[in-house]
Amino acid sequence: MKKILIANRGEIAVRIIRACKLLNIWSVAVYSTADATAMHVAMADDAVCIGGPNPEDSYLNQQSIIAAAQITHADAIHPGYGFLSENADFAKLCEEQGIKFIGPSSKVISIMGEKSAARKTMIKAGVPVIPGSKSDFTTFAAAQEAAEQIGYPVMLKASSGGGGKGMRVIESDEDFQNQFDLAQAESKNDFGDDHMYLEKYLPHPRHIEVQIAADQFGNAIAIGERDCSLQQRHQKVIEEAPASTLDEVTRQQMFDVSVKAAKDIHYEGLGTMEFLFDGPEKFYFMEMNTRVQVEHPVTELTTDVDLVDLQIKIAQGEPIPFAEISRHNFALECRINAKTAGKVTALHLPAGHGIRTDSALYQGYSVPPNYDSMIAKIISFGHDRESAIKQMAGALDETVIGGINTNLDFLTQVLQEPDYLINHTDIGWLDKLTQ
Amino acid sequence: MKKILIANRGEIAVRIIRACKLLNIWSVAVYSTADATAMHVAMADDAVCIGGPNPEDSYLNQQSIIAAAQITHADAIHPGYGFLSENADFAKLCEEQGIKFIGPSSKVISIMGEKSAARKTMIKAGVPVIPGSKSDFTTFAAAQEAAEQIGYPVMLKASSGGGGKGMRVIESDEDFQNQFDLAQAESKNDFGDDHMYLEKYLPHPRHIEVQIAADQFGNAIAIGERDCSLQQRHQKVIEEAPASTLDEVTRQQMFDVSVKAAKDIHYEGLGTMEFLFDGPEKFYFMEMNTRVQVEHPVTELTTDVDLVDLQIKIAQGEPIPFAEISRHNFALECRINAKTAGKVTALHLPAGHGIRTDSALYQGYSVPPNYDSMIAKIISFGHDRESAIKQMAGALDETVIGGINTNLDFLTQVLQEPDYLINHTDIGWLDKLTQ
Repeated sequence: MKKILIANRGEIAVRIIRACKLLNIWSVAVYSTADATAMHVAMADDAVCIGGPNPEDSYLNQQSIIAAAQITHADAIHPGYGFLSENADFAKLCEEQGIKFIGPSSKVISIMGEKSAARKTMIKAGVPVIPGSKSDFTTFAAAQEAAEQIGYPVMLKASSGGGGKGMRVIESDEDFQNQFDLAQAESKNDFGDDHMYLEKYLPHPRHIEVQIAADQFGNAIAIGERDCSLQQRHQKVIEEAPASTLDEVTRQQMFDVSVKAAKDIHYEGLGTMEFLFDGPEKFYFMEMNTRVQVEHPVTELTTDVDLVDLQIKIAQGEPIPFAEISRHNFALECRINAKTAGKVTALHLPAGHGIRTDSALYQGYSVPPNYDSMIAKIISFGHDRESAIKQMAGALDETVIGGINTNLDFLTQVLQEPDYLINHTDIGWLDKLTQ
Repeated sequence: MKKILIANRGEIAVRIIRACKLLNIWSVAVYSTADATAMHVAMADDAVCIGGPNPEDSYLNQQSIIAAAQITHADAIHPGYGFLSENADFAKLCEEQGIKFIGPSSKVISIMGEKSAARKTMIKAGVPVIPGSKSDFTTFAAAQEAAEQIGYPVMLKASSGGGGKGMRVIESDEDFQNQFDLAQAESKNDFGDDHMYLEKYLPHPRHIEVQIAADQFGNAIAIGERDCSLQQRHQKVIEEAPASTLDEVTRQQMFDVSVKAAKDIHYEGLGTMEFLFDGPEKFYFMEMNTRVQVEHPVTELTTDVDLVDLQIKIAQGEPIPFAEISRHNFALECRINAKTAGKVTALHLPAGHGIRTDSALYQGYSVPPNYDSMIAKIISFGHDRESAIKQMAGALDETVIGGINTNLDFLTQVLQEPDYLINHTDIGWLDKLTQ
């Protein structure tokens, strides 16, 4: 590859441009009219305006991006994350136009993008998914049979349900009949349907994901895992590597099934297998993300693998250049979000020993209101979780982002929570804390 | 320790303040009237103005600094590098006032500060020093005998000489008599003295230094080495770790003698043994720096040891908490120097994967004309030297420091030199390149 167009903006566009420089590959930025003064535009070797501030008119505008690639003779497109990165149609369009889409094939993206297709594929590959009743049912006897098969506690759900209606956590056999009758009545009343189904209920699961990479030669490797349990309304807030609650046996099982699945589906590029982790040897596939992850730096800092470099090399047709991963240190990422748009009137991002920042901010830059609120990532690392958290606390403390409101204070508070410090959290913890 | 006063400014003061935060130790900045708006003042928990812009009035003003420590009830002083960091009198004053000087004892500083005392001490500890004639001489016969003992090539020097006068490189026995006569005549003529002496001549030595740490319990350890051969007028410009021209046998020898010497002199704290390296198993002690080194980050990034943290812990009376060092990656440091003082009107320092920056700059800051010209350090790391250099090239390329003149372009050019890229340099290389 001689030239890559980066179909993205913000810190991830900057990240990819830096990787291109290392590989002596020319970079082309695309930008909306709201982003003319953005850092990725300044840093790339070339830049093309692709439309108005509205994402549909620019960063999601497939024809405009393809045209920009053709005008600049880019031979590949890196989609980053978000926007078109998991859009199978766009990947297909690239394939048709003879432009290398940096990621897996449109077919694989399409399968992984559909919940039921992805689940089927993973079951076939031997990846554990959340156990559920084989089919819907309407009788208590059938419910009871399914529950015993799955094992208590279970979550009873209305087949047509949603928004928590017709849902019950069933802890044991006791009182199940009564709960079933109530839930079924609720379902009939609210959705006009008395079909119910059961799933294994996980009271306090953690979100643990495995970073994988697979090349065009059928090689696949797990490059460490991350714990992303700290979420607010399903948005990751703080991510860690390694997952310190994970035992070595389960870690290896997660790695093994992830690698096997990647090979089975002829995966290419970077990918992330997201699991719910519920204790030793209990983990369940949620979804696969077929692109680079926001939180990839925590893996880079604990494995010495440059993931974006690897991603581009795989897309170039190179084999994965290592068969083993060495792991050391502990890394933590905090996502810095802007709560308001506007001009950054003062800026000091943390730096120095044990700190990495990925951002596209500069003093004088105006954060536009049109895009994702994440404006910077602060990553800290140390020998262990405790020292990485300490480093992060210091880093947040010295950070100055003037002129706009951010979640810096919120993050500082979270880092001081006793439960966080002893790692006594799960995917519901942060929402509960702040509700 | 509960509170540390940092008797320094700029990036190293910021570095030490960050280390204090990690250790839950309060930090006190001192500053001259020229530094009221400096970053270290903003970042420390407390700050005391200690005098005027002239270093003699502030950062070298021993009484003023001691008074600041007493007023703020600091129980220790960290001297950083430069200024009072290797001043035995100041260390003694701290000892007398019951304030812990973070470094070795005033006695050790004093010995290492005198060239001949340091040389004698090192010889006693079994550290190789540059071979020379036992004593001065006035006859050619004595010169010849000494030269044969040392081995050609040798450097013939006038005992009273200086500035290159009366100096001759003697390659072999041939023509020695003639060279001797000329040099002696020159010496007699210029300095009124015909005493001569000989030293081993190293045509292309490299500057390789060993980072050591020693605690109050007699433990000492070598924490990797650095190659600092790229110097301009004896000022280091680019530093690397590890020293890639060094063979494993010589590395171990350097480590062993450095550790032995540290133990012999009851060293305490961080120290650096500087050597001239002239090929396998040929290395000669130059001097020992009894403080933290500017280039310490390249060691931190290749050993995972936080050197300033370790330094403070040793000063607190803690033992060195590890007996072995794991080494990985390759790191490179470029010193960013200001060629002019003035206001920084625009600023973008590099960041992201493989990059660390240590600096005290911010946009709007005025670089005062009174102090050292080094305003920032950019450190890059990668799997090997080549990738670290690539990372650095990208980092220099994206750096913006507006309003003042810097050496950024110079560094960029040096990184492109073919001899630099193949590591075919020595301590004279950069001066030769730019003369």
